[in-house]
Amino acid sequence: MSETEMVDSGRLKIEWARSHMPVLAAIREQFEKERPLKGHRVGMALHVEAKTAVLVQTLVAGGAEVAITGCNPLSTQDDVALALDACKDIDCYARYDCCNDEYYEAIDKVLDFGPDITIDDGADLIFKLHTERTEMLPTILGGCEETTTGIHRLKAMERDGALKMPVIAVNDAQTKFLFDNRYGTGQSSWDGIMRTTNLLIAGKNVVVAGYGWCGKGAAMRAKGLGANVIVTEIDVIRALEARMDGNAVMTMKEAAKIGDIFLTTTGNRDIISREHFEVMKDGAILANAGHFNVEINLEDLGSMAKSVRTSRKNIMEYVLGSRKVYVLAEGRLVNLAAGDGHPAEVMDMSFANQALCVRYIAENRLPNGVHVVPRELDMSVAEMKLKSMGISIDRLSSEQTKYMEGWECGT
Amino acid sequence: MSETEMVDSGRLKIEWARSHMPVLAAIREQFEKERPLKGHRVGMALHVEAKTAVLVQTLVAGGAEVAITGCNPLSTQDDVALALDACKDIDCYARYDCCNDEYYEAIDKVLDFGPDITIDDGADLIFKLHTERTEMLPTILGGCEETTTGIHRLKAMERDGALKMPVIAVNDAQTKFLFDNRYGTGQSSWDGIMRTTNLLIAGKNVVVAGYGWCGKGAAMRAKGLGANVIVTEIDVIRALEARMDGNAVMTMKEAAKIGDIFLTTTGNRDIISREHFEVMKDGAILANAGHFNVEINLEDLGSMAKSVRTSRKNIMEYVLGSRKVYVLAEGRLVNLAAGDGHPAEVMDMSFANQALCVRYIAENRLPNGVHVVPRELDMSVAEMKLKSMGISIDRLSSEQTKYMEGWECGT
Amino acid sequence: MSETEMVDSGRLKIEWARSHMPVLAAIREQFEKERPLKGHRVGMALHVEAKTAVLVQTLVAGGAEVAITGCNPLSTQDDVALALDACKDIDCYARYDCCNDEYYEAIDKVLDFGPDITIDDGADLIFKLHTERTEMLPTILGGCEETTTGIHRLKAMERDGALKMPVIAVNDAQTKFLFDNRYGTGQSSWDGIMRTTNLLIAGKNVVVAGYGWCGKGAAMRAKGLGANVIVTEIDVIRALEARMDGNAVMTMKEAAKIGDIFLTTTGNRDIISREHFEVMKDGAILANAGHFNVEINLEDLGSMAKSVRTSRKNIMEYVLGSRKVYVLAEGRLVNLAAGDGHPAEVMDMSFANQALCVRYIAENRLPNGVHVVPRELDMSVAEMKLKSMGISIDRLSSEQTKYMEGWECGT
Amino acid sequence: MSETEMVDSGRLKIEWARSHMPVLAAIREQFEKERPLKGHRVGMALHVEAKTAVLVQTLVAGGAEVAITGCNPLSTQDDVALALDACKDIDCYARYDCCNDEYYEAIDKVLDFGPDITIDDGADLIFKLHTERTEMLPTILGGCEETTTGIHRLKAMERDGALKMPVIAVNDAQTKFLFDNRYGTGQSSWDGIMRTTNLLIAGKNVVVAGYGWCGKGAAMRAKGLGANVIVTEIDVIRALEARMDGNAVMTMKEAAKIGDIFLTTTGNRDIISREHFEVMKDGAILANAGHFNVEINLEDLGSMAKSVRTSRKNIMEYVLGSRKVYVLAEGRLVNLAAGDGHPAEVMDMSFANQALCVRYIAENRLPNGVHVVPRELDMSVAEMKLKSMGISIDRLSSEQTKYMEGWECGT
Repeated sequence: MSETEMVDSGRLKIEWARSHMPVLAAIREQFEKERPLKGHRVGMALHVEAKTAVLVQTLVAGGAEVAITGCNPLSTQDDVALALDACKDIDCYARYDCCNDEYYEAIDKVLDFGPDITIDDGADLIFKLHTERTEMLPTILGGCEETTTGIHRLKAMERDGALKMPVIAVNDAQTKFLFDNRYGTGQSSWDGIMRTTNLLIAGKNVVVAGYGWCGKGAAMRAKGLGANVIVTEIDVIRALEARMDGNAVMTMKEAAKIGDIFLTTTGNRDIISREHFEVMKDGAILANAGHFNVEINLEDLGSMAKSVRTSRKNIMEYVLGSRKVYVLAEGRLVNLAAGDGHPAEVMDMSFANQALCVRYIAENRLPNGVHVVPRELDMSVAEMKLKSMGISIDRLSSEQTKYMEGWECGT
Repeated sequence: MSETEMVDSGRLKIEWARSHMPVLAAIREQFEKERPLKGHRVGMALHVEAKTAVLVQTLVAGGAEVAITGCNPLSTQDDVALALDACKDIDCYARYDCCNDEYYEAIDKVLDFGPDITIDDGADLIFKLHTERTEMLPTILGGCEETTTGIHRLKAMERDGALKMPVIAVNDAQTKFLFDNRYGTGQSSWDGIMRTTNLLIAGKNVVVAGYGWCGKGAAMRAKGLGANVIVTEIDVIRALEARMDGNAVMTMKEAAKIGDIFLTTTGNRDIISREHFEVMKDGAILANAGHFNVEINLEDLGSMAKSVRTSRKNIMEYVLGSRKVYVLAEGRLVNLAAGDGHPAEVMDMSFANQALCVRYIAENRLPNGVHVVPRELDMSVAEMKLKSMGISIDRLSSEQTKYMEGWECGT
Repeated sequence: MSETEMVDSGRLKIEWARSHMPVLAAIREQFEKERPLKGHRVGMALHVEAKTAVLVQTLVAGGAEVAITGCNPLSTQDDVALALDACKDIDCYARYDCCNDEYYEAIDKVLDFGPDITIDDGADLIFKLHTERTEMLPTILGGCEETTTGIHRLKAMERDGALKMPVIAVNDAQTKFLFDNRYGTGQSSWDGIMRTTNLLIAGKNVVVAGYGWCGKGAAMRAKGLGANVIVTEIDVIRALEARMDGNAVMTMKEAAKIGDIFLTTTGNRDIISREHFEVMKDGAILANAGHFNVEINLEDLGSMAKSVRTSRKNIMEYVLGSRKVYVLAEGRLVNLAAGDGHPAEVMDMSFANQALCVRYIAENRLPNGVHVVPRELDMSVAEMKLKSMGISIDRLSSEQTKYMEGWECGT
Repeated sequence: MSETEMVDSGRLKIEWARSHMPVLAAIREQFEKERPLKGHRVGMALHVEAKTAVLVQTLVAGGAEVAITGCNPLSTQDDVALALDACKDIDCYARYDCCNDEYYEAIDKVLDFGPDITIDDGADLIFKLHTERTEMLPTILGGCEETTTGIHRLKAMERDGALKMPVIAVNDAQTKFLFDNRYGTGQSSWDGIMRTTNLLIAGKNVVVAGYGWCGKGAAMRAKGLGANVIVTEIDVIRALEARMDGNAVMTMKEAAKIGDIFLTTTGNRDIISREHFEVMKDGAILANAGHFNVEINLEDLGSMAKSVRTSRKNIMEYVLGSRKVYVLAEGRLVNLAAGDGHPAEVMDMSFANQALCVRYIAENRLPNGVHVVPRELDMSVAEMKLKSMGISIDRLSSEQTKYMEGWECGT
């Protein structure tokens, strides 16, 4: 494809996404009228694909200038990146399958642009700001963070007294994690696995590592596709939930022996490593839906393998003695690196929170630290979403409100 | 049945329950050794059936004396009540289908007994203590509350500055509400409805009012039984969750027209009232799984009915013109009033929290107010439960712990 | 209860069932007008409970006289039996928990009544006719058989040249086995197990023996209630289906070690026997949903047990060394012996087939052998059912019919 | 990609598929030893993608020479076609997105090759043989047909006395239609829809037209992905099944107004046509999983549209006044035209039947007409599949066999 064709292809993708993101559309309309981001520069490191592009355009509609790069080397879609870069007030530095150096150079370029507000998915911009680019910190009004792993990182920084700017934990909005992490990851991970492998999910032993919101979604959908689901956990409450939701629960050591497909969603490292590879069945498929590519220990696997090759697009085959083990998308987010990421309607809610939080940062002076999304923003996203789905719900009558506030009615 | 036969019947029920409550059994063993409740008097108002009896016996094993009555006129099982009353150190005042006066007399008897610790399910003991029996408040060390509705009442009291004793919100333990409210209510409500009506759930339009933990469980099980589920809500987030879980979501006004079976789980009043009865289909079945019998407005329904009669055990038939509408168990908790309540294994967890919290109150001096269950108690219940189920889970390695606490690893 | 009270109780149950059996109601109306069974005597051996009573009354409305007894010692509901017996033109000989001699005496009484048409559930009447009462065979116009096991028996007789009367295999009507065996058995078995045990299904290993229509229904509902389902089979196709439906599949020898609840649906004997009891977990629950009480080998179990006792209504406890194993309803149909049988709406379809087939036998002279339900009867039941549910469906246009009949249109 | 690169890409795809088709691998081994197809020429018209290639290679391993073309203009994968064509003893004439003339020319080329055995998916080869190429009929030993639509066509021919060769209805093998049509279509249709649209299935109204095995699979998976499923049917029994499986059932006229995504699986024409397009919601998505592209009437749609354009790969946007309606893959099989078709493990069973049936035709002289797959072949496929999955099942003891064959045991 020529560059023009790529730009056209990217534009079509963005248009398709936009037409399925009605909440963001409503916000955009408001932004166009009120221009609340006028004069602000937003630096972003997100997965650069069509839904993200709609967010970028929404911010620009609000008056912002934007520089953006990717937050994962394999999640960028080059046609969308080019289409974005061709827009007024937008610079895009993301490139698919860039090497580590290029990846961090692009991060630097976004910072060189001089943002006063940041949006991260995994906290890479903020980390850079707190290490090599500390001189910029005083000019930063605040940042938004998209994902559980990023929040985790930021809270660790806060705990260590290292966080020198305000950050809104967009991930922790109810309209984000309850939907994006669960229904988004749930569907898109299996979409990615199915399209990459063309294998049957029904009748397989599927091992889901972690039973947080992502893991819950992944397990729910695996069951919905006919799998026998096994969950591994480190948290006793979640382990019980997993069991009572009809899954088997065991250690990874046990699960490794019987799993046909493994999907990690923990946010931690070495979930699947040497001791597990050693006992896996021939033909086991390994995929990751966690933010970083550390959940499946590919170093261990590589060192054990007699040979490694690409056996199908996005499938790496490792030969271990007489057994083969397959890793999808190099252990990176399988829904993004081997798919189109979360469905548009889900990102509509997540990115509506982003847009509203960027505005909130622009209009309020927040103290350093990790902040929750203001409840009224969260609720307004849910309301807009329900409305866009044509759903009406009940409202409390005054008698009911009074009853709920009282305590004098008994048996 | 003679009284002796009833006592024998009650004992068998208690024994059966006990053999399926392994966490409580482990606590009981510890209590027998350590006698932490020696010298304490526990006053209780709970659903008096077999699982509750196992809790009572556990407290007695810990050294306590106990007086107990019911917390709902229709949930008492008389054989169990008699068997309890026949035990050393236990007085039981509950009776099935007692009238309102008897109900409150029994509450008074429990207070006459002079408890220093209370356990409520719906806050009736505590309410009495704060109105007619305030003289007793100084001698009360604290109380435990079992259910969402009770917590709601207590927090309203606290907000109004009216709460004059410490209360532990046992309901809010994760090992309580995530399991009891969801899997417990989910299963037992449908058990109650099925055994009472002998009707098919598959292919019915089932309307679940409320999508809190109880409603989530009720909807999940209705779907598991083959129903087409409609959810009504007042909360925008929950409404979205309900929809994305595959349910229809609409107002009760709309749902009333098409529902075959209605189940309320909101904790609020008048969820189904005149305007809904007016449009219901002939043959609609109404049941409640919320704590109080206020969710279905029976006054409205009675005033509209040409005639009312019992058409089958626990089914009241209201004739509205040419249509009939059926109410189960007088609009009281259908799982208890028309069944045996939550499954034993679920109450094992809820009541393990109760037993540990009673001990906690006995051993600590808490300030007035509503307290959360200490996290270590909550976790220990989950651990004991997993162990009793023969489930082992993973533990973090030190590298993993370090990774989770750090923030310096990036893409 | 006095006999009058029992009759009243039975009448209410019948009335309740009748109001939920709209197809049978439509047939009854037609029967009342046309009196197609006038002069015929119908001898029946069915589970004597409310839904069956509605069938009996429908036949009587059509002009028949009926004598009926039970087809299983534990499935009779005495109040319904008395209410039936009190009706004009109906003799009922069934009694709950009768001994074997009484059971067969009652079968004889039904035959003494001189039926020209029979209805069986398990072929007991027909078997008696072919052994001790062969003199009656010439006067029999034909019979109807309700259940898979009965059909199986009758086809074996036909194969052996032993069947000397025409029998319609009502079980094999699509509107019967696809619904009654699947949704009926599925729901009512778990209803019976839940109300009898008050145990949690979620998180249990449930072993379903057999994956025919009954087993499919039982497994589907177990999963719907949160269980981890294991299926055992002898048929390779069904074993594959079970697996791809998300169940584990293994031999009973393996399943016996890990099952928490066992439910047999095979129609065969010794599905669970000595070698399985030997390895079961402490606390295992055993129930049967197959027609005869031969699937769980209670003789084996009794001979292995140190002691046996009733530990709760309909639960027999067998102590095997340090383990206990519990058998529900003496290994008889758990949905009937420990519940109210299939939901009314399901029996509406099954019994509509019975009523239409009795009429068909009265109006046609069939040759000896096992006959299928005429397709137009089967379809008419489905049509009436859809109509009663308020469901409209599409009809083929003439172009569509032509397209489906043609073969000349290609890619 | 260069032709060499394409051949390499095709080979990798074939290798991947082969490693997930263990039943076909076992047959291939046997074929290599016994060479049962030596001297035979097999003419094929199937979807030319990797799994089909594995079947072709299996036939060649058995001694056959093969000529193959596609059975649908959009289902060919060119890299696989080139890789096949590069093999000894294989000619491949399929090309992606060929026009109608090229399509039928390729059919002719396969016949020019002089096959004595045919394999069809939709009966195009056989149709050609019976119209323009009747001179070849005497040399044809028999054919195999893969799909419901093809069988339908062939039975219509047989009914009309027009079928002049024996054909085995491979589709009707239990190991084919119970798995391929249900789990295969179920998964792959949604895989195709998800990857093409990147839209969320959860919370959508999904309309599935037809509740045969394909429709059942499609509905089951839609529900598993969180949709609210509506089924349309013309058959009363299937309509009832659909309802009792928890779906809504209505006419397409009603469903058209509320559906978000439509998927047709009927095998008939004009399932969605003018009257439905007129009332659809803005943004409705239309896809087809039936064999021919006649289910969605694109002529109607085109004539109603103000404008038509490709709005994303495999998505055609039709503008109807202020509404837009989207058609996936030009209304052709969405799983093949916008995906990789059925999962490999499912095609393993379907194509194992094909391979065994080709051998059966080669070794037996069949009369003209439509034949069922011999039961022993069908069972052997199931057995090999179970074995490949590591599943052992129970076998009947001699007592059990005797019991099942007898009829003298009663209550």
